[in-house]
Amino acid sequence: MTMEIFWNQNRKLLSELIEVKTIMKNTIGHPDSFVRDPIFQMIEAGGKMLRPSLLILSSKFGKFDSERVLPIAAAVELLHTATLIHDDIVDNSQLRRGVETIQSKFGKDAAVYSGDYMIARSFMLINEQYDKNMIQNLSKKISQICAGELKQYRFRYNPNISIYEYIKIVSAKTAALFSLSMYMGAYLGGLDEKKIRLFGLTGLRIGIAYQIIDDCLDYSGTDATILKSSHNDLKQGFYTLPLICALKNDKSDSLKSLLETSNFNDEDICKIYNLVIEKKGIRDAKKMARRYTEKAYDALERLPKCESRNILSDILDSLLERQY
Amino acid sequence: MTMEIFWNQNRKLLSELIEVKTIMKNTIGHPDSFVRDPIFQMIEAGGKMLRPSLLILSSKFGKFDSERVLPIAAAVELLHTATLIHDDIVDNSQLRRGVETIQSKFGKDAAVYSGDYMIARSFMLINEQYDKNMIQNLSKKISQICAGELKQYRFRYNPNISIYEYIKIVSAKTAALFSLSMYMGAYLGGLDEKKIRLFGLTGLRIGIAYQIIDDCLDYSGTDATILKSSHNDLKQGFYTLPLICALKNDKSDSLKSLLETSNFNDEDICKIYNLVIEKKGIRDAKKMARRYTEKAYDALERLPKCESRNILSDILDSLLERQY
Repeated sequence: MTMEIFWNQNRKLLSELIEVKTIMKNTIGHPDSFVRDPIFQMIEAGGKMLRPSLLILSSKFGKFDSERVLPIAAAVELLHTATLIHDDIVDNSQLRRGVETIQSKFGKDAAVYSGDYMIARSFMLINEQYDKNMIQNLSKKISQICAGELKQYRFRYNPNISIYEYIKIVSAKTAALFSLSMYMGAYLGGLDEKKIRLFGLTGLRIGIAYQIIDDCLDYSGTDATILKSSHNDLKQGFYTLPLICALKNDKSDSLKSLLETSNFNDEDICKIYNLVIEKKGIRDAKKMARRYTEKAYDALERLPKCESRNILSDILDSLLERQY
Repeated sequence: MTMEIFWNQNRKLLSELIEVKTIMKNTIGHPDSFVRDPIFQMIEAGGKMLRPSLLILSSKFGKFDSERVLPIAAAVELLHTATLIHDDIVDNSQLRRGVETIQSKFGKDAAVYSGDYMIARSFMLINEQYDKNMIQNLSKKISQICAGELKQYRFRYNPNISIYEYIKIVSAKTAALFSLSMYMGAYLGGLDEKKIRLFGLTGLRIGIAYQIIDDCLDYSGTDATILKSSHNDLKQGFYTLPLICALKNDKSDSLKSLLETSNFNDEDICKIYNLVIEKKGIRDAKKMARRYTEKAYDALERLPKCESRNILSDILDSLLERQY
């Protein structure tokens, strides 16, 4: 299903996401344009709004109250956007969502403080509901995301990184916020504790699958498109699942010996990419993505049948389709 | 009064601040050393612990409950430390508190994510008391600090920055957290709304005086020590109060014409420093610092006499003494 068809079928969700964006902007709203502009640019550039979608849909399994749910969805997306802005500082990225990054266009100061500003505003928004559990969950997940990012950096250029460590990193840096979104949605929908936890678990699995697929996409394309990508994970020493799987399959250690330097030139990058494909790294990584997606489907199927379940299932389909 | 004499006289406060540090460390406590170490290093390097001191002392005007007050004091100091770590990214600083900065020693990633981690943990700590008012205040003040920092950057290399703009920047980037500390202290002490606000105002004034004095210190010293300072405000285009006052006094515009370039060499820096002194910039800035300190004393004197008032007064004295 294309995204166009998806949104045509889900006009209600689309209008809710537009409302979420409005809340995000109102929350940021600052009289000074130099505070507002960089953040608005980032919000306008758009993203998939996956996390708010998951949150809204999860809440609809129970009693849906848009006035409670949409601000929390906005807070989660604000937080996600803040982490992207901070990621771009670390990676020194020039482009994000097809537009110049805040740090590149407005400077490192704008990126650092805009991110902090957005984190603070997310808490403000969540605090409006005055719910200890939600503040606790949000701060815990931010801690997890940061710890995941730090762990990922620690394992740079380390060809001995295991699948287990990779999954732990991905669970923290990406899947934690997916999990929080579904957990909070179910919580806001008033579901019972056991179901809420099941939603959290489903989100975690979706998040892991999502990140693996993202990492696989980084290894698809021709030599030219791979090199054109101004900063890919490999150049920065991030060894993701396709490479980890290839290393595991590579009995000759030819791949490992290529990774012994930490300064890859274009030729190295192409060689590594080709070896990752040759050693079935992408195939095996995709297998794992499928396993996590299936686990997410399994969890979904344990939930009551309803329109939201169908939409969640469609979203899962589209995530998986990205592989092919 | 030297700091040694001060702490000898205030052993109770000292032991409370040691407890605050323990709470800070316990709050950060993460099983992975790569998350913990950079932050612990920063906490260990120490600071003046001014904000927790103000908070604790303010709370003692009412009913002091260490179990409620000390964690909040720790949260405020954690937050302050997080902003310092993020400031060092923006300024590309090598040294902080006499030790290598996190970004210089552990990398930009460690600095970005450690800061975010600490912000999240501050909220977690404050949330333990489950008080909507406190979360609201904390997020508001972080927003203000970020907006203040962004404003300061916007006014870089701008010789037309007014005293009014400078005070607004300083109020946000520095004084907001001083104000919050005293406000929260009084709030936790159970004082009435009017008094709580008076404490907030006192903190604001102390914070402004503190920052002005800091900015004056940047202009004291010999040519050699000034140039040795690896990154001073001036080199980065931050025109602080001594320079702003000197510009105001400089009818010949000789200082303004020197500022027309945004790339100062060592000779320019020395010339500007000397002109700031010649045009009575430091004298006038110190006058303003004294005015704000006196306003803070005035506010203090409206509070009931007690031991904490005396200690606060001593702290104010020592802040002012830094000028001479």
